[in-house]
Amino acid sequence: MATGQVAAAAPTGAERAALGLAVALAPQGPRGHNPQVGCVILAADGAVLAEGWHRGAGTPHAEVDALSHLACGAARGATAVVTLEPCNHTGRTGPCAEALIDAGIARVVYAVVDPGKASSGGAQRLRDAGVDVVHAPDDDAEALIDGWRFALQHERPRVTVKWAQSLDGRAAAADGTSQWITGPDARAHVHRQRSLHDAIAVGTGTLIADDPQLTARVPLADGSDDPATPQPVPVVVGHRSVPSFARLRDHPRRHLHVHGLPNEWLRELWTKHGIQSLYVEGGPTLASAVVAAGLADRIHCYVAPTLLGGPRTAMGDVGVATIDEQLLLDDVQVEALGRDLLVSAIPRPATIRPAATAAKEG
Amino acid sequence: MATGQVAAAAPTGAERAALGLAVALAPQGPRGHNPQVGCVILAADGAVLAEGWHRGAGTPHAEVDALSHLACGAARGATAVVTLEPCNHTGRTGPCAEALIDAGIARVVYAVVDPGKASSGGAQRLRDAGVDVVHAPDDDAEALIDGWRFALQHERPRVTVKWAQSLDGRAAAADGTSQWITGPDARAHVHRQRSLHDAIAVGTGTLIADDPQLTARVPLADGSDDPATPQPVPVVVGHRSVPSFARLRDHPRRHLHVHGLPNEWLRELWTKHGIQSLYVEGGPTLASAVVAAGLADRIHCYVAPTLLGGPRTAMGDVGVATIDEQLLLDDVQVEALGRDLLVSAIPRPATIRPAATAAKEG
Repeated sequence: MATGQVAAAAPTGAERAALGLAVALAPQGPRGHNPQVGCVILAADGAVLAEGWHRGAGTPHAEVDALSHLACGAARGATAVVTLEPCNHTGRTGPCAEALIDAGIARVVYAVVDPGKASSGGAQRLRDAGVDVVHAPDDDAEALIDGWRFALQHERPRVTVKWAQSLDGRAAAADGTSQWITGPDARAHVHRQRSLHDAIAVGTGTLIADDPQLTARVPLADGSDDPATPQPVPVVVGHRSVPSFARLRDHPRRHLHVHGLPNEWLRELWTKHGIQSLYVEGGPTLASAVVAAGLADRIHCYVAPTLLGGPRTAMGDVGVATIDEQLLLDDVQVEALGRDLLVSAIPRPATIRPAATAAKEG
Repeated sequence: MATGQVAAAAPTGAERAALGLAVALAPQGPRGHNPQVGCVILAADGAVLAEGWHRGAGTPHAEVDALSHLACGAARGATAVVTLEPCNHTGRTGPCAEALIDAGIARVVYAVVDPGKASSGGAQRLRDAGVDVVHAPDDDAEALIDGWRFALQHERPRVTVKWAQSLDGRAAAADGTSQWITGPDARAHVHRQRSLHDAIAVGTGTLIADDPQLTARVPLADGSDDPATPQPVPVVVGHRSVPSFARLRDHPRRHLHVHGLPNEWLRELWTKHGIQSLYVEGGPTLASAVVAAGLADRIHCYVAPTLLGGPRTAMGDVGVATIDEQLLLDDVQVEALGRDLLVSAIPRPATIRPAATAAKEG
């Protein structure tokens, strides 16, 4: 601790409550390249003076948004409670640490240490300016930026690869028919999963063969689709063009079209489009390529209680030439969904073999 | 009820206990074409006079075996407690009902009604001879003849089809390597299952490729194999001959060699060899043919937590050309065995389609 600084007091009850409010405010901002952040300005007596959240890239950060609701000088001596460490970075907007200092904020309570390389150091800058700074770790605030942190670290979205299969691993009967091999509970689960991801990927082969809507349809109590369900950005993977009649074109969000190696287009989804989480919906070629490249962070395998046999396997070549290269699964969880089973698992990172990715490049 | 007969009194406590003893005695006889039956002769005071069980085809039935331990006339006025209705049939041995009457047995308590077409009617014959006859239903006694009853009714053994696969339905990696895709708990479970079946079937392809021992190895507490473990009869299915060096030739029981359509050789296993239950162990060709023919009464699918991809599917063609012909599974049960899962299920009888069997004949 630098000379002249005193240890900041632990967060008060009012500050803890304000942090909960800030966590609740943050998701009002969009997901993307920037983290979702919430900020609450408290008076010395604990009264809420202003609320703010980050409204998207290029717009004021949560702290500046909150300060903007106050008259000039009104924040002097106040406390800023924020879900993420105030940034120390001049991008399209100025550093929040400086804005807080300039506004005369006397104390800052923040929950998550900024993991960004360029933006970190805000807490120290505030301390150096004589601001009382408290780090107040909070699980909800951590969860808020979990996807952003993952994408920042891996330079790609977190990926869930989903497929449905018969117990014997087929996606369809020999003639290609496959409608409803899983039941309504499994399908409802898929729609909820779609709504929980920023984007949903489908290969051009499946797009052309199945013409999927790629919307997240979650019913209200009356059976109608909830219009508030978050809709994932549809992502089409492959060189073939999207047919003019594709139902995808009616999707509320404009689709992205990418191609190349999985690591290439996944990186593009994050760096160009700010996609933090991706649901790889199919078909077998796309799902297998992502798994083979070691880029599936979790798999969701819906198993229908049926046997189909024949050539139409749900997974194709996953880059396993010999048994020593098998893609072991950890954290295997089985859940009954009506008559179906959902097997959820994490491919073991140690089995991400450069050779498998290289083989795909040949 | 015929004139002159009175309703028999319900079984006494001593008779119930004797029935339990008879059930325990029965498995000392061999399994085969005849049911396992136990018999206990009780004095009027409830003391056990003699015990008997059926020692195999062509030998005295349980009742006659029990009577044979008594001096001439010693059974007069006694009660015979027997797990199965005394037979009324002259085969290689005379009808038991007649032997009981001749011995002067005054009362017969039996648990299971004889389902045999030729052998039934023993209870009525006894009643007609003035013997006091009581039917005392008993679950353990029913379980004792369950396999025999099934084989008698279906003219084939009850069939369990077992296979091991990766989550994505592969039996091996692309190059054919597959050793130990399932773990020790799953393998121990397989050995217990082998010991619970009369016979274990393997295709000639798997026999030649894998050279399996086909023994049931169940360890004792000290880790050594329990020598008392029942050993299933090995059955080789297919036209190719068993290599002279096959480890199968060291099996404690002599192997059977069959071929043809599954319904043909299954019938042969029962009618010629008295096999009541069969464990179809593999490989994919044999397992798929039995499933496709609608002759799998239960499937045991061991799922290893791994992905293999590629061409080596655990199940091949199961006769499903289009989705309407899918082989639906009922009574699906999932059990964790170490890191593996055992999915046990009953193929739905309604999906046994004559067309599928016919297709296999082409």
